[in-house]
Amino acid sequence: MPGTITTIGLDADDTLWQNEQFFRWTEARFAEMLSEHAEADHLRERLLEAEKRNLAHYGFGIKGFTLSMIETAIEVTEGRVPAETIAQILDAGREMLRHPVETLPQVQETLEALAGSYRLVVITKGDLFDQERKLAQSGLGDFFDAVEIVSDKNRATYERIFSRHGDGPAASMMVGNSLKSDVVPAIEAGSWGVYIPHDLTWVFEHVDEPEAHPRFRKLSGLAELSNLISEIG
Amino acid sequence: MPGTITTIGLDADDTLWQNEQFFRWTEARFAEMLSEHAEADHLRERLLEAEKRNLAHYGFGIKGFTLSMIETAIEVTEGRVPAETIAQILDAGREMLRHPVETLPQVQETLEALAGSYRLVVITKGDLFDQERKLAQSGLGDFFDAVEIVSDKNRATYERIFSRHGDGPAASMMVGNSLKSDVVPAIEAGSWGVYIPHDLTWVFEHVDEPEAHPRFRKLSGLAELSNLISEIG
Repeated sequence: MPGTITTIGLDADDTLWQNEQFFRWTEARFAEMLSEHAEADHLRERLLEAEKRNLAHYGFGIKGFTLSMIETAIEVTEGRVPAETIAQILDAGREMLRHPVETLPQVQETLEALAGSYRLVVITKGDLFDQERKLAQSGLGDFFDAVEIVSDKNRATYERIFSRHGDGPAASMMVGNSLKSDVVPAIEAGSWGVYIPHDLTWVFEHVDEPEAHPRFRKLSGLAELSNLISEIG
Repeated sequence: MPGTITTIGLDADDTLWQNEQFFRWTEARFAEMLSEHAEADHLRERLLEAEKRNLAHYGFGIKGFTLSMIETAIEVTEGRVPAETIAQILDAGREMLRHPVETLPQVQETLEALAGSYRLVVITKGDLFDQERKLAQSGLGDFFDAVEIVSDKNRATYERIFSRHGDGPAASMMVGNSLKSDVVPAIEAGSWGVYIPHDLTWVFEHVDEPEAHPRFRKLSGLAELSNLISEIG
């Protein structure tokens, strides 16, 4: 039957496990380190500007974020930041890279329930090395038929991945916390797009909800996914 | 016929295009920036130690290398490095990330000749974002049936990739400039391993040549690959 869902793509950061909170915590530490030189709000703004400017060079991930923090520290202090503070920023970045993975509530149970009946594929942006570490540490790896770590998530990304690992976009569903990266481009590709908001979502990822679209759904947690699929399947 | 080669894996950095030379040039700039504080040789040693130490956190690539340079600059100056120098290191890292891609001699012609008759797969370590940029800029992308950017290259990597994109390891050949990453583990997986040395190869990648192995070959350039394949095919 065309339209029957056989394949489910799942975003990783802030869909399977916590991610953005580590960035916010590190931002708060960063603000503290530089509190003599800049107001926290101003600093956050400058850091965001640096991140935007550097996105084309660094892509997504913690290493690029660390480099942007260092750059911002030099800028806001007009070159007076002591090396000791730079060393603290390096430490903060490395701590992020080794933080233990915290899976979100009901993720393990939901994947376990779906894994037998659907092809599950992790589809995530970010740093290859760091994402592989998190997947390994999460203990969720065995539930997935494939892992796709990509540098961008657009319509073509979903067409390609759902054709390679599934029965094409129309028989697939993408689930994630970013409307911009997970939901809207998957719907454009012809798949279902399921939005599970997370309290913290990076400001770059905000776009409007495609409320009226017949293949758009919004859930309050991953646990609701099994019901949704039986309903529309 | 079992053993007939249908699939060729090719390493990217220093096999398809120049890479290591950009690291060496940047290292030389780095030594100059810190020439008042440390001898070039000593600095290189300390940088290499930092890279080794950080490999488990940063993986391979330019962003990690930049972070290790900053760390080393702080260490060798005992915290007296001026922020201006850190800013120069950030600039040097960004320049590496946008350097134009220089394909190696005969690469374009060789891939063109092989692409019709064999499945060609790029198999490369390093930073996802940066490798995708280089592949796009090189103009070589269309010759390849698949691109696999991986965090490690071991026996299992080649078993998996040559099964996914080809007819298994025994019908595949891996070509690259690193004995440790490209040649030895591919031979262990049951594939042919073709070594094309590059003048510059990262010290981490040195191991002995498996000279006596029947599926090991050494070429002086990619242009010799077509002949080799007809010979053993």
